[in-house]
Amino acid sequence: MSSSDIFIGETIGTAVLILLGAGVCAAVTLKHSKAQNAGWLAITFGWGFAVLTGAYLAGGVSGAHLNPAVTIGLAIEGGTKWSDVPLYLASELLGAMIGAVLVWLTYYGQFRAHLNDPEVLRAHTGEEGMVDQASAPKAGPVLGVFSTGPEIRNAVQNVLTEIIATVVLVLAILTQGLNEEGHGIGALGALITALVVVAIGLSLGGPTGYAINPVRDLGPRIVHALLPLPNKGGSDWGYAWVPVVGPLIGGALAGGLYNLAFA
Amino acid sequence: MSSSDIFIGETIGTAVLILLGAGVCAAVTLKHSKAQNAGWLAITFGWGFAVLTGAYLAGGVSGAHLNPAVTIGLAIEGGTKWSDVPLYLASELLGAMIGAVLVWLTYYGQFRAHLNDPEVLRAHTGEEGMVDQASAPKAGPVLGVFSTGPEIRNAVQNVLTEIIATVVLVLAILTQGLNEEGHGIGALGALITALVVVAIGLSLGGPTGYAINPVRDLGPRIVHALLPLPNKGGSDWGYAWVPVVGPLIGGALAGGLYNLAFA
Amino acid sequence: MSSSDIFIGETIGTAVLILLGAGVCAAVTLKHSKAQNAGWLAITFGWGFAVLTGAYLAGGVSGAHLNPAVTIGLAIEGGTKWSDVPLYLASELLGAMIGAVLVWLTYYGQFRAHLNDPEVLRAHTGEEGMVDQASAPKAGPVLGVFSTGPEIRNAVQNVLTEIIATVVLVLAILTQGLNEEGHGIGALGALITALVVVAIGLSLGGPTGYAINPVRDLGPRIVHALLPLPNKGGSDWGYAWVPVVGPLIGGALAGGLYNLAFA
Amino acid sequence: MSSSDIFIGETIGTAVLILLGAGVCAAVTLKHSKAQNAGWLAITFGWGFAVLTGAYLAGGVSGAHLNPAVTIGLAIEGGTKWSDVPLYLASELLGAMIGAVLVWLTYYGQFRAHLNDPEVLRAHTGEEGMVDQASAPKAGPVLGVFSTGPEIRNAVQNVLTEIIATVVLVLAILTQGLNEEGHGIGALGALITALVVVAIGLSLGGPTGYAINPVRDLGPRIVHALLPLPNKGGSDWGYAWVPVVGPLIGGALAGGLYNLAFA
Repeated sequence: MSSSDIFIGETIGTAVLILLGAGVCAAVTLKHSKAQNAGWLAITFGWGFAVLTGAYLAGGVSGAHLNPAVTIGLAIEGGTKWSDVPLYLASELLGAMIGAVLVWLTYYGQFRAHLNDPEVLRAHTGEEGMVDQASAPKAGPVLGVFSTGPEIRNAVQNVLTEIIATVVLVLAILTQGLNEEGHGIGALGALITALVVVAIGLSLGGPTGYAINPVRDLGPRIVHALLPLPNKGGSDWGYAWVPVVGPLIGGALAGGLYNLAFA
Repeated sequence: MSSSDIFIGETIGTAVLILLGAGVCAAVTLKHSKAQNAGWLAITFGWGFAVLTGAYLAGGVSGAHLNPAVTIGLAIEGGTKWSDVPLYLASELLGAMIGAVLVWLTYYGQFRAHLNDPEVLRAHTGEEGMVDQASAPKAGPVLGVFSTGPEIRNAVQNVLTEIIATVVLVLAILTQGLNEEGHGIGALGALITALVVVAIGLSLGGPTGYAINPVRDLGPRIVHALLPLPNKGGSDWGYAWVPVVGPLIGGALAGGLYNLAFA
Repeated sequence: MSSSDIFIGETIGTAVLILLGAGVCAAVTLKHSKAQNAGWLAITFGWGFAVLTGAYLAGGVSGAHLNPAVTIGLAIEGGTKWSDVPLYLASELLGAMIGAVLVWLTYYGQFRAHLNDPEVLRAHTGEEGMVDQASAPKAGPVLGVFSTGPEIRNAVQNVLTEIIATVVLVLAILTQGLNEEGHGIGALGALITALVVVAIGLSLGGPTGYAINPVRDLGPRIVHALLPLPNKGGSDWGYAWVPVVGPLIGGALAGGLYNLAFA
Repeated sequence: MSSSDIFIGETIGTAVLILLGAGVCAAVTLKHSKAQNAGWLAITFGWGFAVLTGAYLAGGVSGAHLNPAVTIGLAIEGGTKWSDVPLYLASELLGAMIGAVLVWLTYYGQFRAHLNDPEVLRAHTGEEGMVDQASAPKAGPVLGVFSTGPEIRNAVQNVLTEIIATVVLVLAILTQGLNEEGHGIGALGALITALVVVAIGLSLGGPTGYAINPVRDLGPRIVHALLPLPNKGGSDWGYAWVPVVGPLIGGALAGGLYNLAFA
């Protein structure tokens, strides 16, 4: 696989992944969206089919990692050369940032209307009346379009949840080599992976919102910090390391477990 | 592919696409339908599986474009001859109009009951009490069965949203050639495309209702204008160019991007 | 295909189809069911995956028609011998009746609790307070577990709706021969057919509840009439011909249309 | 298939099955989960895709039974050696227990918050105000994360429901040999099986919550009894035999029926 294949496939594939994934969060969250309040099933299927679309687009070009946790897992397993890892990671982060910008363009009017809505602004500045388990500030609804945040803020618990969820994801991706011929990701493999992501969202997404992918969280968070959104609030950088470190540990554990148990 | 194959496949396939796609909008919108208020997930899966059914029916006959944006994208990519394009477009528009008439026949009683309902009529004539962001009149609930309409009416924003969503669709369809053998659309390809359409609906459909297909919007809008529905209101021709122009630009961009990045 | 293959495959396959299909109606309708009020998406996916399960079980044995409309369509198309048709139809009806009995056994406690519930009984005897468009009595909630009933009772409209929906179903099944190798129904073909059934439910099921299969309606209706359910009400025999005649016409039309347009 | 393959595949596969399956119950039930009240569709798709993930992971290693009812059915049908059965059962039970512990770790904060919530505690100690059909105590909301419980408590009815549902499952799995080449479970076979499980959940899960797998219920119930959860209440051992005996009978019946009708 050439460097330009890796760069093009991972950048476009991850951009589409985040466009559709963060897009469903915008669709369900923002005012004046036809999908507002479509619920958790919409979010989990939206992210799952976002993975399908990105993986399908990039599968024949770069193998469609779209996720540093997958890249690390594949490097440990041996399917990806360590020398290619930096280019994979950089392309994935760039793609994630491009995807987040595309969500902003797609929902430009909705972001404006949402952030100027008096009711949203009141909730956003913390006058919610909800009982909050954590002392740290909760992510506002607009940050939630871009990045994940925990329901109960506890670094050890949150990292552990992300590790467990990511092990499931990366193990399933590594296992494709057993079930299929394994040259690039096939259409059926992309579909299975997508439904595994739906499963992880439905089953393990409750506590932290299942980043399970460092750039899925970090890329859009950077874009949130940079975008000229009025009243957007902070980017919650205190939590930003959790959805990076947890998935990286999970991807590495999955690679090791795969070599021990399945290879 | 012969001219009669193109004509038969595209006309029947697009008719089924719109019968099922506009059908789910009727099912969820109209009074005295068992599916009333089934929600956004129902609409997005309904449209996705409408694409599956139409693509599956027409795939072996005409290649199942069912969408001028796909035809343009394939012509630019080289998979479809430019000399076949006019017949594809005409057949797609004819099919879309036939599909819309079939929805009217299927839901004949529901249309009558809905439009004679005093509550619906009151909302339809604008006494809704909802805050409307746009100065232009909102599409009534019966036009919404046939054609798309924006939540926030702004031509530039609406065209941009349609372009972005259509690029994702057409890129995914062009990519099939990389993943499969590529002679006509296979069953698995039709399924993946269908789920990509679900993804686009869930993630990018919030602002404009995702036409992503010129004839999906224009064909049923013409039928809405012609049908003898009492109290049906206007056909919102002022917006009609957006879901035609946006998807055509998106299809062309996807064809060009594909040639640059993937070919 | 031997007569015993046809008998075994169609009887077991249709029994499973109705066990799961009428089962989801019981699950969503009856009191003391964990799925009560799970909604229209649950019903449409439940019926779709009921088709998947039945078709998957019977596909390699009898070809998995499971539906007289499919049998008629295939006989007209030429894929099934006319001399086999009576055995197919009889096995399908027997299977549908067995399936309905199995639903009764599975939900035995729920039927008893539901029919003895004072609130249900009141609604069942017509004191609902709902505006009813039709002069004829509406099917009670327990009949709705077994058989279909229209939202607006009009024989011409209801037959037309069933014809249109059945044409879509049978065309999609006949088209499998174009996309696949066509010896028996394959796993992927069963999946596509299942999702087409979900599409028909979501999009065309609103007016009549989409029988699209004569035995799906008639078999359970006979069982409803025979079962010793207290307070079960009538079996609405006045409507029973509609979901038999409509789908048979639809299956025949699809067979003819297929021979004209696709063969 | 070597003993170590059986042990590794069944333990890891069943652990993932229960992690995701019991996980979705935690996600939908517990306070401070983003998926709270996501509904029955979320639960049924969550369990179905849990089966997909576990079966996909273990398919190439141990054949992915993940369920003693499947092991018994396959032993009767002849696809699994009786001498391998004890190791299959032990590995499945161990995996189910590991999966339940992983759910506890993933939702550690949610369990604590939920069980300390005054409203939950009040409901948990029986002051619900709901009309209960059964004299026996209902399972509390935290036990429901781990194990199944009936809506109407009647041993004969509950066993019968579990038998019927398990026959459908195991028949569908045995039938794979007819449709596919049958060396291990393929990716498409895993997908079909997963959707059959969704169907069973939607259609037959209403009365008992569809264990259809002895270790799916028993393994997490043992873990519930052992875990140091404050205020967790009893483990309802009086019901524990039903979801063990019912599915075992169902698996055996399916094996016999398969040999009679399909082989």
